[in-house]
Amino acid sequence: MFFLRLIRCRLFLVERKTDTIAKLFARNMSQSVDQTIEKMSKMDIKNDNSQQQPSQKKSKKDEAGKFLLKAPKGTRDFDPLQMAVRDNVFKKIIECFQLHGAVTIDTPVFERKEILTQKYGEDSKLIYDLNDQAGELLSLRYDLTVPFARYLAMNRLINIKRYQIGKVYRRDQPCAARGRYREFYQCDFDIAGVYDKMLPDSECVKIMADILTKVDLGDFQIKINHRKLLDGMFEVCGVPKDKIRLVSSSIDKLDKTEWTDVKKELVEEKSIDPEVADKIGEYAKLSGGMELIDQLKSDEVLNKNKSASEALDDLDLLFKYCAIFGIKDKLLFDLSLARGLDYYTGVIYEAILKGDLVDYIAEQQKKALAEKAAARAVAIEKAKGKKTKEILELEDEDADVNVSSGVGTVAAGGRYDELVNMFDKKQNVPCVGLSIGVERLFAVMEAKIKRDNLKVRACETEVYVATPQKGLVEERLRLCQMLWEANIKTEHSYKANPKILHQLQYCEENKIPYAIIIGQDEIENRVVKLREVASRAEETVPREKLIETLSEKLLKTIKTY
Amino acid sequence: MFFLRLIRCRLFLVERKTDTIAKLFARNMSQSVDQTIEKMSKMDIKNDNSQQQPSQKKSKKDEAGKFLLKAPKGTRDFDPLQMAVRDNVFKKIIECFQLHGAVTIDTPVFERKEILTQKYGEDSKLIYDLNDQAGELLSLRYDLTVPFARYLAMNRLINIKRYQIGKVYRRDQPCAARGRYREFYQCDFDIAGVYDKMLPDSECVKIMADILTKVDLGDFQIKINHRKLLDGMFEVCGVPKDKIRLVSSSIDKLDKTEWTDVKKELVEEKSIDPEVADKIGEYAKLSGGMELIDQLKSDEVLNKNKSASEALDDLDLLFKYCAIFGIKDKLLFDLSLARGLDYYTGVIYEAILKGDLVDYIAEQQKKALAEKAAARAVAIEKAKGKKTKEILELEDEDADVNVSSGVGTVAAGGRYDELVNMFDKKQNVPCVGLSIGVERLFAVMEAKIKRDNLKVRACETEVYVATPQKGLVEERLRLCQMLWEANIKTEHSYKANPKILHQLQYCEENKIPYAIIIGQDEIENRVVKLREVASRAEETVPREKLIETLSEKLLKTIKTY
Repeated sequence: MFFLRLIRCRLFLVERKTDTIAKLFARNMSQSVDQTIEKMSKMDIKNDNSQQQPSQKKSKKDEAGKFLLKAPKGTRDFDPLQMAVRDNVFKKIIECFQLHGAVTIDTPVFERKEILTQKYGEDSKLIYDLNDQAGELLSLRYDLTVPFARYLAMNRLINIKRYQIGKVYRRDQPCAARGRYREFYQCDFDIAGVYDKMLPDSECVKIMADILTKVDLGDFQIKINHRKLLDGMFEVCGVPKDKIRLVSSSIDKLDKTEWTDVKKELVEEKSIDPEVADKIGEYAKLSGGMELIDQLKSDEVLNKNKSASEALDDLDLLFKYCAIFGIKDKLLFDLSLARGLDYYTGVIYEAILKGDLVDYIAEQQKKALAEKAAARAVAIEKAKGKKTKEILELEDEDADVNVSSGVGTVAAGGRYDELVNMFDKKQNVPCVGLSIGVERLFAVMEAKIKRDNLKVRACETEVYVATPQKGLVEERLRLCQMLWEANIKTEHSYKANPKILHQLQYCEENKIPYAIIIGQDEIENRVVKLREVASRAEETVPREKLIETLSEKLLKTIKTY
Repeated sequence: MFFLRLIRCRLFLVERKTDTIAKLFARNMSQSVDQTIEKMSKMDIKNDNSQQQPSQKKSKKDEAGKFLLKAPKGTRDFDPLQMAVRDNVFKKIIECFQLHGAVTIDTPVFERKEILTQKYGEDSKLIYDLNDQAGELLSLRYDLTVPFARYLAMNRLINIKRYQIGKVYRRDQPCAARGRYREFYQCDFDIAGVYDKMLPDSECVKIMADILTKVDLGDFQIKINHRKLLDGMFEVCGVPKDKIRLVSSSIDKLDKTEWTDVKKELVEEKSIDPEVADKIGEYAKLSGGMELIDQLKSDEVLNKNKSASEALDDLDLLFKYCAIFGIKDKLLFDLSLARGLDYYTGVIYEAILKGDLVDYIAEQQKKALAEKAAARAVAIEKAKGKKTKEILELEDEDADVNVSSGVGTVAAGGRYDELVNMFDKKQNVPCVGLSIGVERLFAVMEAKIKRDNLKVRACETEVYVATPQKGLVEERLRLCQMLWEANIKTEHSYKANPKILHQLQYCEENKIPYAIIIGQDEIENRVVKLREVASRAEETVPREKLIETLSEKLLKTIKTY
């Protein structure tokens, strides 16, 4: 037991070290791997202190007054600059949802455990449970969709168009370099209700396109397919009914895996007849636009299948509506798209970014992963002569270091008509929706800011009130009050007699566009000096004209990014 | 064991019933207590089914396909209208924080358990722990202040002016009628750093006043005191050093309790000499403005005490700065204000609402609690002849039903110079901050909306595109696309051939200001009918003038509340 604990602590340390290294590189800090590792080695001592057995832990900690100061594994704090980026992305997304008339709801961060069971298949093991503290058994939410379905069933709602933004929790193996966290945001939009074919569905695709246009992170493509087309296609190829989901999950890998490998999986692992596999392969390699729909509609074998034929009619209509919405060029009808989740029943779609930012990120990611691998190698070297198992586990973790996943899917969704039924058999509430991969969009936005050297401000301060002499603090407060009253975002020093140089430095560091300087002379003449921080140009403005002059200037100030 | 479980289930049912009743009344629904109780009785059957022992639970549930559809105890969903109110309050608060140049950060919803221990005294028992799923021991955050201190210590930050809005978790006894939940928002603003006296402190008080002015929920008062003045005052009265915190917590009750009762507590429970208690009483009853500071400054006994004399200098300066900020009239120097939290070290303050909304809410609350009491009485009557313990517990819960707490404190804060030290002895990061009681502000805002019959919209849709004949769905989509392109918030029906009456009803129900109606005639003449929903007035507008005309009208549309 103690031995196992020791190994776990060790692994934890290595993990923490490599995570930190990855983070440092991601932030483009100028430390070399060696320097970082040296730092980490020092952490070893500290960590070893606080990773004692529970019985010893408390007294040790009290003695030294030391804590292991870190956010829980797989989670992160957002600093002010990251928050500015994050809020900016959210703002654009919410604007799009509201443009389409959506309302929003909120549900608790945890649910009664039974609400979440039997919803996520194998992934259920990733659910965080709360301690049983003599009450209900609770779990942290795993996504926003199941709580939404619970909300609909509980309130007997038969239609709603809602968005919801909130954090969800998965006890997955975290990987900062890949942007995989245990606490992350989901950002969902769904239309629930019995409506006519493809009208809500096409609006979801439209919203997805609008958002990706608005966040302005390069070109994108939305792949589209239909669960019923997949069902029909597999059926006519000769896949037994009970193997359709199995085959479907293999086909879904075609965006990253060669057909020969997928075929091998189908034949060898899933016992699909090689001829059947080949027939599937013929279909799955197809992708295109409306002409492909026409082509499949004239495929006699496929068209005799009711499921496939209905799906093709749906897709035909969807493309027609999307053409009206001006997004036809963004769509790609792709027969290999299958989507992982079990609950989809109709149209499915997912969006990927294209363009040079994606290449840039893949490159950065490769670098970060290589650094991670190097750090691991050093750790393994250091661990040599210690327990063999430890080294083996380290080496095992190494295995996936060289696979760079790039940006991946940034938005996805589809129709799920049966989920609300799971909570209340009497309710029929068909749904269609989409989820924006906001964590990925944050990461891409951060990469863009870094690559293009964009200015980002953590605060929105418009003017800073500075005094060049001592004893003027009250005069400063009086000016601040005047500016706050006029709704102008204002700061000043919290030192009574700050140095003028420090005050002006603060303005430049925080990219505050204007400074107001007021000294004895200015007070006597009832004027202020108005300084444009970037150019350092100054002008004298009568005090009673200050608000007016400043407001005009601020209107013309270009908002940073 | 089984017996205990049974009692717990029963109590849970009663609790759920009464909670639901309170909620129904809070929402002003027209059901009588009797009707509601009848409904609840029916729930009994359902609940009894799903409150089986764990081993039986699963099969029962699967059989019936039934879930106990509720949010976890002490938590709630927010529906779209509540969200609109909530977002509106948040928006105003954030605007104030940003007006003063604050940045924002985010921390995870859970922390390593050891970060939270020894921070909350007795209340630590209210912390939610996560299950030990073979990793770190984690707890849900109890407030935002301790994670903030952890963030400062971890990143070795020596100054920051930040706000943070997030949910926190307390396993307290929930009470919907009192607005006490287990999951609720905190909304904090703090200034950390070594600065000059009262400059950050007075800005915190100023921000508190600005926010309460901006949310526009009636007049308010900010009570102010100083921990060091309390310390000095108790000292000169003859309170032993080790009893200062004990005495302080009794004095803090003076806003709700008579002096005679507080004195009794001091003398009988806390063994304070009656003469000492009387001396304290003389000071504690004092409240006023700057003149009271002067008066105490000339109190020779008090002024010889270093702690008290420093505190009075602080308060003098604070009032002077607040006078410059134009909020002197809102302040009340109150020697009975002590604040509960251990970690305060300097100025403390808390704000209460005044005015008629407060009376209205107290009245409503009394009603709701009376209904709750009535429902409990019925439940007790029904439970008679059953287990005695059950009835006793029910009666016990009744005890506090008649105490109406009104609105209470809506914002509070103070200086805490030692908290960051708890994480890192080497760091000296004095802090001062404030916390807005947003859940209470939401409740007051909801009461205001109800009392004044204010219009609140859950969505922001500006125009609805309607068609009066069949077969025009594509024309509708074309118009929607045109409006979305122009950034006009637009909805339409998801039915292919909706009835015109239903479409116009939807507009009125959702308070959408304008409808565009397009039929065969309009298409032929390249015009649309533009209808003002409230007045039902219609005009014909050429299609190419639509965006321009509509944009102008929308600019003039008064935003609801």
